[in-house]
Amino acid sequence: MSAPVIEKPSLRAGAFGNATGLSCRECGHQVELGPHYACPECFGPLEIAYDFPAVTREEIESGPRNIWRYKALLPVPADIETSPNTEPGFTRLLKAHNLGAELGIDNLWVKDDSTNPTNSFKDRVVACALSAAREFGSKVFACPSTGNLANAVAAAGARAGIKTVVFIPSNLEQPKQVNSAIFTESLVAVDGNYDDVNKLASEIAGEEDGWAFVNVNVRPYYAEGSKTLGYEIAEQLGWRLPDQIVIPVASGSQLTKVHKAFQELIKLGLVEDKPYRVFGAQAEGCSPVSVAYKAGVDAIRPVKPDTIAKSLAIGNPADGIYVLDICRETGGAVEDVTDDEVRDGIVLLARTEGIFTETAGGTTVAVLKKLVKTGQLDTSLETVVINTGHGLKTLDAVSGRVGPVATIAPTYAAFAATSLA
Amino acid sequence: MSAPVIEKPSLRAGAFGNATGLSCRECGHQVELGPHYACPECFGPLEIAYDFPAVTREEIESGPRNIWRYKALLPVPADIETSPNTEPGFTRLLKAHNLGAELGIDNLWVKDDSTNPTNSFKDRVVACALSAAREFGSKVFACPSTGNLANAVAAAGARAGIKTVVFIPSNLEQPKQVNSAIFTESLVAVDGNYDDVNKLASEIAGEEDGWAFVNVNVRPYYAEGSKTLGYEIAEQLGWRLPDQIVIPVASGSQLTKVHKAFQELIKLGLVEDKPYRVFGAQAEGCSPVSVAYKAGVDAIRPVKPDTIAKSLAIGNPADGIYVLDICRETGGAVEDVTDDEVRDGIVLLARTEGIFTETAGGTTVAVLKKLVKTGQLDTSLETVVINTGHGLKTLDAVSGRVGPVATIAPTYAAFAATSLA
Ligand SMILES: Cc1ncc(COP(=O)(O)O)c(C=O)c1O
Ligand SMILES: Cc1ncc(COP(=O)(O)O)c(C=O)c1O
Ligand SMILES: [Zn+2]
Ligand SMILES: [Zn+2]
Repeated sequence: MSAPVIEKPSLRAGAFGNATGLSCRECGHQVELGPHYACPECFGPLEIAYDFPAVTREEIESGPRNIWRYKALLPVPADIETSPNTEPGFTRLLKAHNLGAELGIDNLWVKDDSTNPTNSFKDRVVACALSAAREFGSKVFACPSTGNLANAVAAAGARAGIKTVVFIPSNLEQPKQVNSAIFTESLVAVDGNYDDVNKLASEIAGEEDGWAFVNVNVRPYYAEGSKTLGYEIAEQLGWRLPDQIVIPVASGSQLTKVHKAFQELIKLGLVEDKPYRVFGAQAEGCSPVSVAYKAGVDAIRPVKPDTIAKSLAIGNPADGIYVLDICRETGGAVEDVTDDEVRDGIVLLARTEGIFTETAGGTTVAVLKKLVKTGQLDTSLETVVINTGHGLKTLDAVSGRVGPVATIAPTYAAFAATSLA
Repeated sequence: MSAPVIEKPSLRAGAFGNATGLSCRECGHQVELGPHYACPECFGPLEIAYDFPAVTREEIESGPRNIWRYKALLPVPADIETSPNTEPGFTRLLKAHNLGAELGIDNLWVKDDSTNPTNSFKDRVVACALSAAREFGSKVFACPSTGNLANAVAAAGARAGIKTVVFIPSNLEQPKQVNSAIFTESLVAVDGNYDDVNKLASEIAGEEDGWAFVNVNVRPYYAEGSKTLGYEIAEQLGWRLPDQIVIPVASGSQLTKVHKAFQELIKLGLVEDKPYRVFGAQAEGCSPVSVAYKAGVDAIRPVKPDTIAKSLAIGNPADGIYVLDICRETGGAVEDVTDDEVRDGIVLLARTEGIFTETAGGTTVAVLKKLVKTGQLDTSLETVVINTGHGLKTLDAVSGRVGPVATIAPTYAAFAATSLA
């Protein structure tokens, strides 16, 4: 198999900010910036390489109240704010007194990405992918998705005025379908699971000209967006890294990039160097990374997902091996929980902190609880748990569990007859 | 009818910040700060009176990235950030190029409150009501609600660790029911419309001790929270008032308070004094204020609501007469649209700006469009439209309108057979 002939797009100067090229995560081979994602030497994943200038806390703090405050650390142009985008990020970092007390963790925070423009962390990655698509002159902005990514791509494309086509498994939750179709004429349901949809997207990316599949052929640019979760957590803690962090894992990209963000902040002198532990969270019905972690092996064996945590239902996770490396190196772990624990996790977070999370967040909270119970997490250390999505998108997971305590006539007598009076 | 005996709670110093008392909107009678809402002289609505210190832009800008940056202008203590709350506000003000082009408005902005903690502007008012309930030592945090308020009260109460009881019409949209029940054990469905639920709440407030009904007996404190929408719009425009603003109207509280906020900013010298026009938006199936506006009368005739815009379905709006005053005085208007126009408004905002709004926002966008068509809005002036809620809560309004364009097998051949290839 010969390397594909790569068309060299003509890029404007500064199109990718301080990014200098693409670098193979496996062999280190360097490639010019372009819509490439696989190393021409070894087919390993390409990552953005940078030459960062000195960046100060003050410069960042004086930036906009969204991810573009970190634009110097992203593969985007200096004028990125002037192009229509959804302006995601700078979501709440909430001190979780009640959840902490419930779980016996002294110092717990929730980073709540459910209040992003389309209610998941995917708005961050899509904003970076959109910038790349724009700079490459792409005609179509597309993705295969477990749901949230489709929402984010369709919305960002609408606002940017670029044609979108989004592909989802046909059995996806209805709210996530409507929340894409509302933004785009071209929501395509595919009879298959996410891994089937992803494979189809790679085929289309290879056949069609000018299609930017955010998580396929512009994946290196896309993935960098997740770093902003790490930057924000550090900045919101007062330019400090937490001791422990718990992150959900589907493809594993987010976890990998939060770790990368922490490392960059250390290298740039924006936070003090210190040890921290990274934990990955999966649902038992799709836990290829957790299974490999527990087996102590390096290779990930793909699975056929069967879990209510559909947003995490990636059976063949592209960045799974890097998740293993990071969680092992930092002294963290990868853990998984049952669908019932996921449902409990959703209710627990809602009742303690007033945050309605989706199944992915239920998974993460349930894993946090399990890590405490199994002694894998140190409850005396400062801990951050990331909520990556919104419960309104996975309503059916809990709609049978919660509801009105009573239905009454509109009279005080009817109220007085309840146990609430 | 004699005035009720008012129990005087012992308040800590500074419990209500720079607020000095309660003042009757009708007769100007002054009452001490307390859980009161009706004037003992004339039964008119009580409003918060203040003695504001000098407040600078710099002081505000250096505050937290939520509504508490304006705490000097709210009836809350100076240490409000230290009490667990949902930290709402400072939502996006987005330049709406596409929607503006579609409607022929040169300079249009969307203030997007759908990304608040529970996805509506109600988190703002509830945060202020929560502070009051805390300072009064209330045992129960409660509300009658058209849906969004219930979500906000239940979530804020969970996070604050105060018992919540929320009352909703039993025919409310399922997502709004789950989005309350997830946070509270005590969601009460009432067989009746909102006005019935509201009446019941007033009865309970009169009978039960220590219940803070956010929009009944602590309504003066609650209502002030909506001012933060006005403050933010001005700050985000660069400390400047817009020329025109379009706001949905249910009880009319929000519209009234945004106007109050603009007036305060002028008096405090934080923005330049200039004329601006305020427009109110209603759904035809519940348009008592719009009907009165068009009839040129001062009195509002209550209606029995029948519209898909359930969050705006208040047939007997408490602040309706003040909405009339403000819209008339400023040279604005109150307009209404059909349910079909509401649905179109939802799709229009999504397809142009990537924002998925609920029926209330669909109403507001549709009214904006109608105001342009009827020549009531000046398309050459800078205009802000407020999106107050989230489309995931009123999915059924559009789920029949949008959906997958195709369902295909997971093969390139199947894709190539669609019109998208
Ligand atoms: C809500 C949510 N959380 C977490 C993830 C995991 O992301 P990653 O693929 O980067 O591991 C996803 C992926 O779709 C998601 O939708
Ligand atoms: C989404 C939404 N927008 C607007 C309103 C109107 O608020 P007001 O009663 O202050 O007029 C409401 C009231 O419930 C609402 O839920
Ligand atoms: Zn390589
Ligand atoms: Zn009076």
